[in-house]
Amino acid sequence: MIYHKIDTTDLGKLSSFISDKERFITKPTSHWDHDQFKTVRAVPDLVIQPVTNEEVQKVVEYASDHQIPLVPRGNSTGLMGANLTVEGGISLDMVKMNKILEYDPESLTMTIQAGARLKDIEEFLADKPFTYMPAPAMHWAAIGGNVDTNAGGLKAIKYGVTREHIRKLAVVLTDGKLYKFGAKAVKSASGYSLKDLIIGSEGTLGVVTEVTVRLYPRPKKAINAIIPFSDLDSAIKSVPAILASGVVPTTVEFMGRKVISLWEKYYNEHFPIEKGNGFIILGLDAFTDGELKAELEQALAATKEFNSYDAVVLDADSDEAKKIWECREALLLAIQKSTPKMDEVDICVPINKIPDVLHRIDELEEDTGMRIPNFGHAGDGNLHIYLCSDDLSDEEYDEKRKYIIGELYNTAKALDGNMSGEHGIGYARKDWFEDYYGKDYTDLLRKIKTVFDPNGVINPDKIFPLE
Amino acid sequence: MIYHKIDTTDLGKLSSFISDKERFITKPTSHWDHDQFKTVRAVPDLVIQPVTNEEVQKVVEYASDHQIPLVPRGNSTGLMGANLTVEGGISLDMVKMNKILEYDPESLTMTIQAGARLKDIEEFLADKPFTYMPAPAMHWAAIGGNVDTNAGGLKAIKYGVTREHIRKLAVVLTDGKLYKFGAKAVKSASGYSLKDLIIGSEGTLGVVTEVTVRLYPRPKKAINAIIPFSDLDSAIKSVPAILASGVVPTTVEFMGRKVISLWEKYYNEHFPIEKGNGFIILGLDAFTDGELKAELEQALAATKEFNSYDAVVLDADSDEAKKIWECREALLLAIQKSTPKMDEVDICVPINKIPDVLHRIDELEEDTGMRIPNFGHAGDGNLHIYLCSDDLSDEEYDEKRKYIIGELYNTAKALDGNMSGEHGIGYARKDWFEDYYGKDYTDLLRKIKTVFDPNGVINPDKIFPLE
Repeated sequence: MIYHKIDTTDLGKLSSFISDKERFITKPTSHWDHDQFKTVRAVPDLVIQPVTNEEVQKVVEYASDHQIPLVPRGNSTGLMGANLTVEGGISLDMVKMNKILEYDPESLTMTIQAGARLKDIEEFLADKPFTYMPAPAMHWAAIGGNVDTNAGGLKAIKYGVTREHIRKLAVVLTDGKLYKFGAKAVKSASGYSLKDLIIGSEGTLGVVTEVTVRLYPRPKKAINAIIPFSDLDSAIKSVPAILASGVVPTTVEFMGRKVISLWEKYYNEHFPIEKGNGFIILGLDAFTDGELKAELEQALAATKEFNSYDAVVLDADSDEAKKIWECREALLLAIQKSTPKMDEVDICVPINKIPDVLHRIDELEEDTGMRIPNFGHAGDGNLHIYLCSDDLSDEEYDEKRKYIIGELYNTAKALDGNMSGEHGIGYARKDWFEDYYGKDYTDLLRKIKTVFDPNGVINPDKIFPLE
Repeated sequence: MIYHKIDTTDLGKLSSFISDKERFITKPTSHWDHDQFKTVRAVPDLVIQPVTNEEVQKVVEYASDHQIPLVPRGNSTGLMGANLTVEGGISLDMVKMNKILEYDPESLTMTIQAGARLKDIEEFLADKPFTYMPAPAMHWAAIGGNVDTNAGGLKAIKYGVTREHIRKLAVVLTDGKLYKFGAKAVKSASGYSLKDLIIGSEGTLGVVTEVTVRLYPRPKKAINAIIPFSDLDSAIKSVPAILASGVVPTTVEFMGRKVISLWEKYYNEHFPIEKGNGFIILGLDAFTDGELKAELEQALAATKEFNSYDAVVLDADSDEAKKIWECREALLLAIQKSTPKMDEVDICVPINKIPDVLHRIDELEEDTGMRIPNFGHAGDGNLHIYLCSDDLSDEEYDEKRKYIIGELYNTAKALDGNMSGEHGIGYARKDWFEDYYGKDYTDLLRKIKTVFDPNGVINPDKIFPLE
């Protein structure tokens, strides 16, 4: 694809669409050249920070008509480079389009501009009887970005991911028109669900400007507990048994002693549970304390045949509970501290196949000598697997990294899993996509991309190579 | 679109794909010319009942290559003519592709051929700790048809509709290839969700042959209660208050005294609740009886300010409870008995907008003199509205029917609702689609249709006119 390089004529025209010149940045700094992971780097030629749908519409239409790449950008918490201008062009930075447009508890919906952060939504709802249920860990992520990657989070097992909580989207397409996909109404059997096509499309089909989310009655009671097991395998294998017992947790996370020891080392701390090498964090919610207690007892009973030890309730106001939470929340940072460089694979496999992946990781560590710490969501089969450079040379690291990524994708594919559970494909993984999903499948996506973006300007070179 | 009429060469070739000649029906009877509603009628030129993916693949590829219309057909419980061969051609009747392929409780999934009925799935799961949660009323509908219309059902408010419970689909596209959309894994952020594009596409993009559904831990406890209110408006207005109280019911249905009196008349029965003119049926489930009780008490307390009377628990083994259930389940049949002909509108509006629709129905009854009984899902804003011919002439009925349908769609559109909550657009409503959703939107759907079905042979003339 040949793109047009922005020239002074374009600058003149584009700037005329934006009322406030502070939001038209012709000399972008490094602020706009990376995402959370910093592995992909690209400085945009121009940054535009729209505040209205009309501004977005004019800019998108102009970019499409003039073959200028345009990349929507949220709060840049992504890991796979999806929001970077890898082909140059315009970074359409949505952070100033961050208003809460409507709180409508009677219809159980709330409408927000795409640049508002999860944190803003949480704060707004804090004193209301309703909540936005999905719980991605990055609270400063923009809701538009959450839509674009179909963000997961800690409560997927009971409440689903972002997709299940989106009622309606306002989306600007390359024709410069504003479309409404979905409705405030709960159900639809009214033609193809374009809303669901946009969710997870990583900003490659159009620019999401407004999001109407489902509000959910805030659970009255909630509890979190950590359950130690003799080993990590047993911990993970207990999960289907917990579910078969009739308990539906909000959250089931796993972590092993190995990754915990990184936190102990790099934070100079001591994990307060001595017994066990594998741990499950179980979250439950309910309307009454009695229900919570009954579910917790049932879940714990179901773990007994998997060599579990006594659980620790984490919401208790004890030093032990606080320390365990601290550890859990610092795991990723502890891994980051342990290595100069790292990469991540977030495959999602059927929940009973996590042990197969963990065994494959052990083999790969042995084969390659690379350290591969991991933890993840036992309740939904989504692993966060980190590849650490440690003292490898850049060349060695890159070679081993690519080999391990490929092997983990092969493993996920063989287990009927997906390449990414929640972090997306972006730019960093696009070259693996066709190999994973096949040419016929990828060609279907390419054709759909062309329907929405005939000139190939909207977030080009993401998810899959265009040809 | 010009289609090729099946000739003897085609019959020779197509029959060579099907191993058993009893499944290749060259003289279809009226069995294949209608759906549940019988308003659209069309006898296919040929009926094929495949039993393997390979048979489907060969037939679909041949039909596409030779410009022969092909219409997938489930168990024909639809209302809008979506499964009829309105352009002639092949009815691909999936009822013999009805095996349960895999029960996999460890991954919380079950894989079924598309022609299996909900009833078959329910029976298979009856003694298992897991259930398929969506609860469409038509238990003899095929699961493939449920996928194609994104069937709703009675538990949408807590558990979502069919879409939320589908993990993976096997779909044959017009190139004759078998595609897998989705995975057994729970989450995905791996490119456009083609699975979600197929769900609700009414068989216009390809032929669904296998469905992998999510299994859900069977709730331990469940309860249903009917709450009488002084009037229907109050009944419906209580629903947001119930939800704001923190209770998440499985089911909230509404019905008024007027529709109940049809049941009394045509079944020669007496409804045992004397007080009240509007009724809510509330369903709850939980892990313990204590939770159920607390939620029920809270919900009932929330209805008090809306003029509610004492509730009757419907699972109780009393004559009163049985009689009320009988009435609820016979409502549609009672309406059918009351009129020679009828049609249905199943718009879905934001849950707080149901009273607006009911008021509009009252006006339309007054304006046109047509009787428009209705009931529906108060918890998700989906109304089932029946237009009764009574003693009108065919011409009068048709004229008034079209007028009322148009007016109800205008009402739904103005309220940010959808044309159909669960029954689809099919053939019967396709001429309203573009007017409702606009030309730009409909053109997008047309282009997506063309990506999947370049020759326009798969279930043509459904949802929207092709041009």
